[in-house]
Amino acid sequence: MKALILGGDGYLGWPTAMRFASNGYDVSVVDNYLRRDIASETDSSALVETPRLPDRVEIFATHGNSRIRVFEGSCCDWEFIAGVFDDVKPDCVIHFAEQPSAPYSMRGLDEARLTLKNNIDSTFNLIWCVIRFQPECHIIKLGTMGEYGTPNIDIEEGWIDIDHKGRQDRFLFPRQASSLYHTSKILDTDLLWFYARLYGIRVTDLMQGPVYGISTPEADLDERLMPNFHYDDIFGTVVNRFIVQAVAGIPLTVYGAGNQVRGYLNILDTLQCLELAAASPPGQGELRIFNQFTETFSVNELATHIADVATGMGLAVEIAHLENPRQESEGHYYNPAHSGLRELGLQPHPLTDDVIKHFLGWVGENKGNIREERIMPRVTWRNAR
Amino acid sequence: MKALILGGDGYLGWPTAMRFASNGYDVSVVDNYLRRDIASETDSSALVETPRLPDRVEIFATHGNSRIRVFEGSCCDWEFIAGVFDDVKPDCVIHFAEQPSAPYSMRGLDEARLTLKNNIDSTFNLIWCVIRFQPECHIIKLGTMGEYGTPNIDIEEGWIDIDHKGRQDRFLFPRQASSLYHTSKILDTDLLWFYARLYGIRVTDLMQGPVYGISTPEADLDERLMPNFHYDDIFGTVVNRFIVQAVAGIPLTVYGAGNQVRGYLNILDTLQCLELAAASPPGQGELRIFNQFTETFSVNELATHIADVATGMGLAVEIAHLENPRQESEGHYYNPAHSGLRELGLQPHPLTDDVIKHFLGWVGENKGNIREERIMPRVTWRNAR
Repeated sequence: MKALILGGDGYLGWPTAMRFASNGYDVSVVDNYLRRDIASETDSSALVETPRLPDRVEIFATHGNSRIRVFEGSCCDWEFIAGVFDDVKPDCVIHFAEQPSAPYSMRGLDEARLTLKNNIDSTFNLIWCVIRFQPECHIIKLGTMGEYGTPNIDIEEGWIDIDHKGRQDRFLFPRQASSLYHTSKILDTDLLWFYARLYGIRVTDLMQGPVYGISTPEADLDERLMPNFHYDDIFGTVVNRFIVQAVAGIPLTVYGAGNQVRGYLNILDTLQCLELAAASPPGQGELRIFNQFTETFSVNELATHIADVATGMGLAVEIAHLENPRQESEGHYYNPAHSGLRELGLQPHPLTDDVIKHFLGWVGENKGNIREERIMPRVTWRNAR
Repeated sequence: MKALILGGDGYLGWPTAMRFASNGYDVSVVDNYLRRDIASETDSSALVETPRLPDRVEIFATHGNSRIRVFEGSCCDWEFIAGVFDDVKPDCVIHFAEQPSAPYSMRGLDEARLTLKNNIDSTFNLIWCVIRFQPECHIIKLGTMGEYGTPNIDIEEGWIDIDHKGRQDRFLFPRQASSLYHTSKILDTDLLWFYARLYGIRVTDLMQGPVYGISTPEADLDERLMPNFHYDDIFGTVVNRFIVQAVAGIPLTVYGAGNQVRGYLNILDTLQCLELAAASPPGQGELRIFNQFTETFSVNELATHIADVATGMGLAVEIAHLENPRQESEGHYYNPAHSGLRELGLQPHPLTDDVIKHFLGWVGENKGNIREERIMPRVTWRNAR
């Protein structure tokens, strides 16, 4: 089985590439290092510098693993990505090749335009590569739980049966996001669903919550194989950021009231979900949607949990409430379904005290790299205009 | 009041510009003549050649009307359109600047990409022009009834209240279109709604059905002021096409079973709807949506009605069922609400025998221009891949 991973240099892309190679897939990766460029532009580099793909592949190979093929270029460049498809002829494509930062997308006009263009163009080109070169190829698209927003009804897995004035039909579950990044992924969903209906492409859309963690069996082989770990306000997700704040002795910064609830998952579970999705593709013309997270927490719960564990390890930890730089509801109903991946066989790794301890320990070893000025929010949703 | 009309050279854009100027608005129009370029590329020119905007403006002025300002350029070019906004400072923008042909968008990869890029970029730039230069400007966006598709439940005006497992919320009415053109307008809606929530832009989205007709009080002043009338398979809407077929003595070509029902309106009613929307803007942050049509017909009903009237005028008319070049349901439930514009004051012009007679008469005067090879479908949805 041949797997092509778009965005293979990313926090999730690279661990996924290694996992699929370990599982016997013939793996190719594509990246144009957009994330590295944005990190450099916004002073948001990872806690530990990671090599570029050709070096990572060599290091991974020295540990007895098969060599991953690397294509350096942009998925927005049709000639380039069509060439990759025609060469690789993948059975399965995992699409991470999107500008993934909500705060970056809200920084201003240029960043909004880049996000929209990059994410739509990469998805559009992927769709057409499948239509043109590999109509049976399974597209696994990383969506986000943020597409749904925080509606006042239960969030189903992608679809909803609506009863209206005595008649029924089934629709995409309504989506209403709170950043342009998340909105760009709604547009992706619209496109994928249109082309699934029209040309019978087969798609799994994984509506993922914020991911935390750094350790995977393959990343643990060599520090140079680890995911690029961001703790900054641009790319750092909330759990990763809180862990760094706890280690650095900076208050954990809760945005607003802290009652915002989201679904979270360990990076190990992201890998499991991708393996499970790839192992059982949907039928032609099907857009299969899973909500991909294992536990829901409010931001306050996360902060308290991490603070408690850190305090137990002798760290002095405070929690501070900041004015929320985002525009989001800070007290809302939240009950998203997430049984589909469990039914496929997902064995969750919950956010236990031990997981937090191990995580704090690893960040502690790299404490000297922490740059405090990267942590506080430098982008506010209101200022972008 | 200053009105800026994007796509002011179009079938609806130009009559709208004249109407608003007649009503005392200070009108500016923008167009890059994309439709003319596509018509030339696809051999789909209008039945009667129309002058470009600067000439039309001069002719319109000779009839005692105020001079409309013309900006020739692309709404996808940020520097250009930002310059227009900063200069004009409109109170109201009417956005027609989209690639409007469903068949063109389904012709192949290049046409799909052009449609998506043009329609998203023009809408995105418009939104940011409003944010940057005129935050109180009222955006009137031409959507399409085709965004909704043909769901098995009543179609409401843009929004739906969903009761789900004992809880309630209000959402955008689900959208599921049957061409990439229509899908691009779903993406527009996602963007407009996001920015309405985020930055409080005020938007009216007019979900329009297929428009027919050629006569407006301003267009009737001078044949060179008429809307560009397309009867081809690319730009010609179904009523206009049937009228031309009846005059040319070609069978009226019904696609498939002909039970496809849509909501239609006379070009006079498009103008009324735009005037009514502009006269009562929504509040800041509001996305107000109207379903813009006056009557629903199946394709068979339209064909029969036009054939009957034409036969009564002594024309020999047949009806032929073609294999449907589109992918669409040919027998479906269809009950869309459309009370909002009536409540604002719309006085519909129904498709009466007299309207059809007058229309047949006008096309008859231009019968010599009809090019039969432009009428049969040259694009099929399936072949585009």
